[in-house]
Amino acid sequence: MIRVGVVGASGLAGGELIRLVDQHPELELTFLGGSSSAGRRPSQLHPGLRLDLGGLTVEPVGEDVRELADRCDAVFLATPAPVSAELAGRLADRVPCVLDLSGAFRIRTPELHERWYPKVARRTELADRFVYGVPELVGEELAGAPLISLPGCYATAITLGLAPLVLELGLDLRTVVVDGKSGSSGGGLQLRTADLHPLRNGAIAPYAPVGHRHAAEVGDFFQRGKPGSVRSLTMSAYGVSHVRGLLASAYVFTDDEVDARALQRTYLRFYKGRRFVRVRRHTETLVPVPDPQAVLGSNYCDVSVLHDADGGRIVVLAALDNLVKGAAGQAVQALNLRFSLPEETGLTMHPVMPA
Amino acid sequence: MIRVGVVGASGLAGGELIRLVDQHPELELTFLGGSSSAGRRPSQLHPGLRLDLGGLTVEPVGEDVRELADRCDAVFLATPAPVSAELAGRLADRVPCVLDLSGAFRIRTPELHERWYPKVARRTELADRFVYGVPELVGEELAGAPLISLPGCYATAITLGLAPLVLELGLDLRTVVVDGKSGSSGGGLQLRTADLHPLRNGAIAPYAPVGHRHAAEVGDFFQRGKPGSVRSLTMSAYGVSHVRGLLASAYVFTDDEVDARALQRTYLRFYKGRRFVRVRRHTETLVPVPDPQAVLGSNYCDVSVLHDADGGRIVVLAALDNLVKGAAGQAVQALNLRFSLPEETGLTMHPVMPA
Amino acid sequence: MIRVGVVGASGLAGGELIRLVDQHPELELTFLGGSSSAGRRPSQLHPGLRLDLGGLTVEPVGEDVRELADRCDAVFLATPAPVSAELAGRLADRVPCVLDLSGAFRIRTPELHERWYPKVARRTELADRFVYGVPELVGEELAGAPLISLPGCYATAITLGLAPLVLELGLDLRTVVVDGKSGSSGGGLQLRTADLHPLRNGAIAPYAPVGHRHAAEVGDFFQRGKPGSVRSLTMSAYGVSHVRGLLASAYVFTDDEVDARALQRTYLRFYKGRRFVRVRRHTETLVPVPDPQAVLGSNYCDVSVLHDADGGRIVVLAALDNLVKGAAGQAVQALNLRFSLPEETGLTMHPVMPA
Amino acid sequence: MIRVGVVGASGLAGGELIRLVDQHPELELTFLGGSSSAGRRPSQLHPGLRLDLGGLTVEPVGEDVRELADRCDAVFLATPAPVSAELAGRLADRVPCVLDLSGAFRIRTPELHERWYPKVARRTELADRFVYGVPELVGEELAGAPLISLPGCYATAITLGLAPLVLELGLDLRTVVVDGKSGSSGGGLQLRTADLHPLRNGAIAPYAPVGHRHAAEVGDFFQRGKPGSVRSLTMSAYGVSHVRGLLASAYVFTDDEVDARALQRTYLRFYKGRRFVRVRRHTETLVPVPDPQAVLGSNYCDVSVLHDADGGRIVVLAALDNLVKGAAGQAVQALNLRFSLPEETGLTMHPVMPA
Repeated sequence: MIRVGVVGASGLAGGELIRLVDQHPELELTFLGGSSSAGRRPSQLHPGLRLDLGGLTVEPVGEDVRELADRCDAVFLATPAPVSAELAGRLADRVPCVLDLSGAFRIRTPELHERWYPKVARRTELADRFVYGVPELVGEELAGAPLISLPGCYATAITLGLAPLVLELGLDLRTVVVDGKSGSSGGGLQLRTADLHPLRNGAIAPYAPVGHRHAAEVGDFFQRGKPGSVRSLTMSAYGVSHVRGLLASAYVFTDDEVDARALQRTYLRFYKGRRFVRVRRHTETLVPVPDPQAVLGSNYCDVSVLHDADGGRIVVLAALDNLVKGAAGQAVQALNLRFSLPEETGLTMHPVMPA
Repeated sequence: MIRVGVVGASGLAGGELIRLVDQHPELELTFLGGSSSAGRRPSQLHPGLRLDLGGLTVEPVGEDVRELADRCDAVFLATPAPVSAELAGRLADRVPCVLDLSGAFRIRTPELHERWYPKVARRTELADRFVYGVPELVGEELAGAPLISLPGCYATAITLGLAPLVLELGLDLRTVVVDGKSGSSGGGLQLRTADLHPLRNGAIAPYAPVGHRHAAEVGDFFQRGKPGSVRSLTMSAYGVSHVRGLLASAYVFTDDEVDARALQRTYLRFYKGRRFVRVRRHTETLVPVPDPQAVLGSNYCDVSVLHDADGGRIVVLAALDNLVKGAAGQAVQALNLRFSLPEETGLTMHPVMPA
Repeated sequence: MIRVGVVGASGLAGGELIRLVDQHPELELTFLGGSSSAGRRPSQLHPGLRLDLGGLTVEPVGEDVRELADRCDAVFLATPAPVSAELAGRLADRVPCVLDLSGAFRIRTPELHERWYPKVARRTELADRFVYGVPELVGEELAGAPLISLPGCYATAITLGLAPLVLELGLDLRTVVVDGKSGSSGGGLQLRTADLHPLRNGAIAPYAPVGHRHAAEVGDFFQRGKPGSVRSLTMSAYGVSHVRGLLASAYVFTDDEVDARALQRTYLRFYKGRRFVRVRRHTETLVPVPDPQAVLGSNYCDVSVLHDADGGRIVVLAALDNLVKGAAGQAVQALNLRFSLPEETGLTMHPVMPA
Repeated sequence: MIRVGVVGASGLAGGELIRLVDQHPELELTFLGGSSSAGRRPSQLHPGLRLDLGGLTVEPVGEDVRELADRCDAVFLATPAPVSAELAGRLADRVPCVLDLSGAFRIRTPELHERWYPKVARRTELADRFVYGVPELVGEELAGAPLISLPGCYATAITLGLAPLVLELGLDLRTVVVDGKSGSSGGGLQLRTADLHPLRNGAIAPYAPVGHRHAAEVGDFFQRGKPGSVRSLTMSAYGVSHVRGLLASAYVFTDDEVDARALQRTYLRFYKGRRFVRVRRHTETLVPVPDPQAVLGSNYCDVSVLHDADGGRIVVLAALDNLVKGAAGQAVQALNLRFSLPEETGLTMHPVMPA
């Protein structure tokens, strides 16, 4: 059994990590870290969890992380970026694997990092050792990796959605316009008036109509992999009236020739053998897909690609559960590959639909 | 009092027309038309309406519309486009004013009409007599107009959102990408499995990811007013998890020079004196706006314009209640102008928020 | 015009009062009071409201209320009960009419008040001067009343639902079991983790399964009007997954003989001529009623009575919009009667349905 | 591996059975039956399911069930009651185990069955062979049972909620008032106008205010186990605005002495060792429980018991996911016990919360 710790146990991603680790046949939960929630049982923080979860209660994480490190083979950091930046430094080389779910180590280009995370000081030499944990796109890099940075929820969807165009077809994407729609769980459990149920329910809230750091993260990723391939990528993000799941729409303009009929085949080929990316036909089911309700609670990312001949554009849709494939599930998937387990271990649950 | 008939009384737009006409100080409801609902009282069809609404019950509309015409000074057609196309022909010149809420007469260019409404036969000479009823943009044309075609709900939002760029600033819009998000009332009350609550709730359903006829309608409108100004306008539409209201986002690319600081001022000036278009600052309230929840039940269209310097684009957001400013309310507003009443008569109700 | 002030302008009831006062033909909004929101415009606090609402901004209410009193013929207190208890004392006799929407003056029996509002000190001589403002049940008492206490939202529904049984049929109600279901707006806009959208959406939250002070309020009311008529009334309350509106179900057991067929007739007779109580047949519409969605945004209370022969009980259902008939609307209705206006003045808007 | 068939594969319970059987380590899905959906793949009917589910497509179930029987060790009937009544007769003794999820065999007393299922003809000798499949309450009866009738979703919640009072404390329940609140998935996917999203969302719909057959089912169950113990049980049922999960509240009046402090202990003792019934303290978590959102997607039934000294009543709350513990999950749990597997096999997934 791989011994696992979760720091940030009281948040939504933390709760989801506990859920998935506890369901995982090869993982054992040995540490729960938190500050305000210290002393509480997991089921008090996350009422869905089973009541008697190994007798663990949340413990504070102090200056000295040696005991924590001794008890864990891997530690998930579901903490705010500044906390992650600091904790990762202390845990690196003390724990076989640190997996950070925050934005602290996602963007590699220092100037970009500074622009989008101005308050997150980090050491570049540490940052450079992190593997970007989108398992379907980083090949063998995760095997044995000591430090893994998990992508943002939107970044996961957009990156998986665009990858076949960039990495397989080698298209030059002149303009990519991303429109993101997300449920309220994306905002966590911070106390903000705008996130109270009376104001959030029924809303289509343009909370980031211009400028979203996940867009910078996506650009940074493709720039590393295929410099110059994505020339302009803008994003606007909206909060809609459900809790879990997001849909990212990418409207893609390219000057390259596109074989409309081959697009879907390319996607199917590109993701062949990757269980968690499902290439879907828009009209195959009784409801239109991709739709986050068809991936709820699961680690799937559903992707569609359509050619809009009239508009001279490609439309890419990608849906995922922001707390699973967009956070905790992808983290467990990366951990599986880190420890040479099949990537789907512990992650084979179906979506819960309808819900 | 202006005597008013509503044909299509059992649908959502029909119910909304009854609500608004009954609240209107200068209108008197004198006829309700329908087929399957004939014989029923309005409150049986629309449980919110007051129980004793003038003793009216729904009547079938037969071949002979003379009696109907005698009882009305104006008739709203809240009927499917093929029915409207046919009924409008019979009522024209028999009733002082026919207001059609369907798509039958929205697109003027015959080839475009044929492409997007292939099943709606209409006579061109009749079609050409219709005024396109978006009151803020057609000047004095509505005064005395015998035939009025109301725009689609999305078309209203997009047209009002783009008009200052096109008609005031004279920009050449190279590429406009529209992303539309709408509640379930946009689909009416037809029995479709995908619209049952268990499948529709919590969904972000890409029901029209490529090709929406409201986009064609918007293009047709600007082509009439300012030929060549909108060179490419594509649209994708999504159903999200609430009932009433829509948000249209237009991502605009232009090669013309844009004075970022002047954009909002231009919008404020353009809509000065027009009560129902509210130009809003994105961050002025405790929740981000425009958001359809802030216009629910009212005739407002909230509009924002933002400049995205990084992305080299303009972001325009427009929110409205699809059943009011997107349908029944705009129809009443047009009727007011048709009969030389102040445009806000009977339409001054505030939004119901939160709901 | 009657000059009106609203203290507590930033809360949900305050926002609703502004909406209704502004739509009212005989009222003029002359003062907005608040503490944390001082200096803000109404539309910044309540994004639905029209932007230019008389140029008013929120003002702090200090020790000296003379200026406030000079500017108003009536003042609504949409403040927490302790604040209301204190402010009402200062405003009494300085303003022609004070209408308190809090619980400070609802319960008359001092021991009961103390039990359910232990933190709300009030003077009994002041409390005794308040009229309990459920207009349909207090006859002429409201005319000229200087002090009016508005009932709780649940209390309004339950009292209107049971009144014909108690006051008209004179039944001895042995056991009344009330089950209340309410949307999230009933909890206001306080920052509580449990009221964040991710945790509140989709919930059926038993927030008061045993003991709700609105039950005590109802008992107190009937005890005043018909001592001994309601021998046991218990209540359990649940938060369900919408924003606005509540349904109260009262399951009534009596040892008296009940003429099942006459029940509905009795209700119709009892509420004849009272516009805002609609006695409804459970099956008359295409959706079951009473349902709060059929009264949304309006001042209606929909009531049904059914006889359950098998169970030997009467089932009474009452639905209302907790912010309108359960708060601001009823307050305006009471004000209308206080100033000898028709009770429906400014309150004739239809429900907004569906929403 | 136990070979399993699911008849009624296109409905919500059918979809849920496929989800759970596919996740189950000891079950193999070998047959999918349906009529209108014949020829379709499971993922076309239930978009969440994995795309390549064993290559199975839905097959029609004809007169001759021999082939079906040959391919299965157990068959789930997720069919309407009349279909189940007929199919069970044909499958009995041909398949080792038939598990019926409909109401066809739930009520044993013939007169009661006839009253509540007047259109479901069944043979009494067949009906008498069915075991009532609420595993926590029927002891060893399920081991080897050839025919199992699964209780209704509400009946499961109410029966589990009341059992300790009746079967452990031996209380004489004079009056039980049940108020049930359920999401829209309880109504399945039949096309009914009232179940369209625009009319169902935001509703509190009193769809069965008087008389619900699950109440008769509960009475019948306790009458068999402890005659006379439940003297009057009435129920009213409401549809609320979410999709999955129900909460049943039972307000219990007894003339027997009740030790308030011992109630919860009794419940804990009664369900000790039964994983799927969680006895919960009302205030132990950051949101009030029991709440169906805390069991979503799981096989848990959360139960609370509270004593209301003032009201002289006991309040019992029971929450479950109507498609899991209220249908498919309980059916799999019963099958586990039928085939001598640990009852939690394949059912250990955590709830998905928040969602």
